[in-house]
Amino acid sequence: MTIAPLRGPTVPVFNAGEIGRRAAARHRRGLPVIGMHFGQPSAGAPAAAIAAAHRALDTDALGYWESEVLRERLAQHYLDEYGVTLPPNRILLTAGASAALVACLAAMFRPGDSVAVLRPGYPAYRNTLRALGLNCVEISCGAEHHYRLTADMLAALQPAPTGLILASPANPTGTMLDREQLATIVSLCRERDILLLSDEIYHGISFGQRAVSALELDPNAVVINSFSKLYRMPGWRLGWLVVPEQWSVPLSSYLINLFLTPSSVAQHAALAAMDVPDDLQSYVEIYRHNRTRLAAGLKSLGIPGIQLPDGAFYLYADLTHLTQDSLQFCRRTVDETGVALAPGIDFDTVDGPRHVRLSFAVSEMEIERALELLAAWLPTYRDR
Amino acid sequence: MTIAPLRGPTVPVFNAGEIGRRAAARHRRGLPVIGMHFGQPSAGAPAAAIAAAHRALDTDALGYWESEVLRERLAQHYLDEYGVTLPPNRILLTAGASAALVACLAAMFRPGDSVAVLRPGYPAYRNTLRALGLNCVEISCGAEHHYRLTADMLAALQPAPTGLILASPANPTGTMLDREQLATIVSLCRERDILLLSDEIYHGISFGQRAVSALELDPNAVVINSFSKLYRMPGWRLGWLVVPEQWSVPLSSYLINLFLTPSSVAQHAALAAMDVPDDLQSYVEIYRHNRTRLAAGLKSLGIPGIQLPDGAFYLYADLTHLTQDSLQFCRRTVDETGVALAPGIDFDTVDGPRHVRLSFAVSEMEIERALELLAAWLPTYRDR
Repeated sequence: MTIAPLRGPTVPVFNAGEIGRRAAARHRRGLPVIGMHFGQPSAGAPAAAIAAAHRALDTDALGYWESEVLRERLAQHYLDEYGVTLPPNRILLTAGASAALVACLAAMFRPGDSVAVLRPGYPAYRNTLRALGLNCVEISCGAEHHYRLTADMLAALQPAPTGLILASPANPTGTMLDREQLATIVSLCRERDILLLSDEIYHGISFGQRAVSALELDPNAVVINSFSKLYRMPGWRLGWLVVPEQWSVPLSSYLINLFLTPSSVAQHAALAAMDVPDDLQSYVEIYRHNRTRLAAGLKSLGIPGIQLPDGAFYLYADLTHLTQDSLQFCRRTVDETGVALAPGIDFDTVDGPRHVRLSFAVSEMEIERALELLAAWLPTYRDR
Repeated sequence: MTIAPLRGPTVPVFNAGEIGRRAAARHRRGLPVIGMHFGQPSAGAPAAAIAAAHRALDTDALGYWESEVLRERLAQHYLDEYGVTLPPNRILLTAGASAALVACLAAMFRPGDSVAVLRPGYPAYRNTLRALGLNCVEISCGAEHHYRLTADMLAALQPAPTGLILASPANPTGTMLDREQLATIVSLCRERDILLLSDEIYHGISFGQRAVSALELDPNAVVINSFSKLYRMPGWRLGWLVVPEQWSVPLSSYLINLFLTPSSVAQHAALAAMDVPDDLQSYVEIYRHNRTRLAAGLKSLGIPGIQLPDGAFYLYADLTHLTQDSLQFCRRTVDETGVALAPGIDFDTVDGPRHVRLSFAVSEMEIERALELLAAWLPTYRDR
């Protein structure tokens, strides 16, 4: 029987997923894999979080639940880290930053609205916009712009978009905006009624200045964050939103109707994860070491012009001299060496075919081993 | 500073949530609460699932992950329970049935498409459709129809809707369609190109015949299910979809872009939960007892005409003689007795103000206590 195609918008595949499946197949064959393809710390959650999860499993029925205590703890976090005072009811817990993004985009915009994103950028921005019938306007922010949006670039968009999704530190480049750069963009958004969604998922992972929250510059900013990166809890699926107080009830209503409540065990564990800053920081120090080592190692392999990221845990490498087909390159890298990388085409449909993203949220030993494997293999590589 | 209202569609609040917050406030004051308002078993997950979760916490980094083994186990389940052979790639794991519904509705329909649902029915159908810019067409299926959709009622819709969401057993009524009734509807959908989404979340919880899966009648049916009800894992957030093979890749792409992967610990636990059928059935037997006891108890309290549900774990009670404002009624019930009920207006904006939904997925003792409390309190109740 013939099945009609799906009527909704076509959403492109996430190519890093294919690399992940190839890595898993290799692993099942007993071959070593170094997973640098997904945006996740290879280390698990802090021990304190795991202990809290064990306790919750033994004492809680784990029904539908929203942790008021966690919302209060997050409000405290904004005061401690950014000097921003927030009533806890402005914080909404979500099933990861993904569900936060879906709910925000559906609630904040109307079909046909245009939302600007950066290219290169996190593919789910573009693809979720598409799935929801919103127009995605890409602003090209390549290496020539140091992967950094300026207010001028945003102002040049005619007509002005209805919204802007901005991440600092950014994925896949790790670029950060300093306070002044972010302030100029926030002001322009306010002037031109551009709704700003600030994705702050990599906050806490930076190697120079701390990242500035949009909430420091606009008390009514909409912020998305998650426990997946700094707190090392990607597969736990817990994130949060900060929204203007007037949007708190209507956005809660979106969240509960679209998603009910987020994972109960994750909420218990996350609360504990917030209270072990030394544990969290110890991994940021590993990433700091890995960042320098990986950049130097790639340079010595003849890969030029890598920008050291300000934050997050990725290097975004221009491989123009090696490949014009980053997906094919990543397939062969994982199949032939076990080093799993993310193809640039996920992040940039224009220049991505000549780029790859390497996550360095792995152990120092894995960085060394990956460099050895690439050193032996890269000289043999030619696009077919 | 004035904040503009959200530009997206307005999504009404989930009133059971308010009842839940009142129940929680009472609980914090040290007062007893009997939670019959949410659609969740009050008992936690099977011991085997909890043990598997403990093991996963100790041995797995819990990163982004999709369990191939669980997809294969679910395929086996369709063979064992329904005699339906499915390749595991037709099964997609989701962050609860909620994420499954969001992804399906976004992928299967275009803004402006009409999707039919039953009234009374699960409010998230209507509200998620609305949030995604789809038209919701309600088919009135009240007590006079025994809360049951017929092919004639569907055929009477002019023009035919693009889609239909159907649940058997249904929420809030527990009504089931037998094989013939479902087959007639499935045939009509096929004839008129109506895309059927079969929500089978209450399968496994029935008190007479087992529920028939749409997959038994149409090998290409789209089915939504979850570990929240029979498997007693609501706060774990894990569900699944069965889709036509041709839709498997494009729908996976929706899921990964909109939601990444579902909770890793839940996937580990769910696999174990599927292998303890006696444990699962023992709770269905409790619900069977509670169903009869609660219906008899309510009858003796002068609440007439309660239909015994065929499945799920709800009684949907007509309180016309008591209240014209079920939200106010439920507020006072929880505040004054501790018995938390769901107001009918969540399920039916027309007749719901005269109905409440009572979940009997609680202990036998809680049913007795709830009946005692209601017996003492109901005679004092008057709408203000």
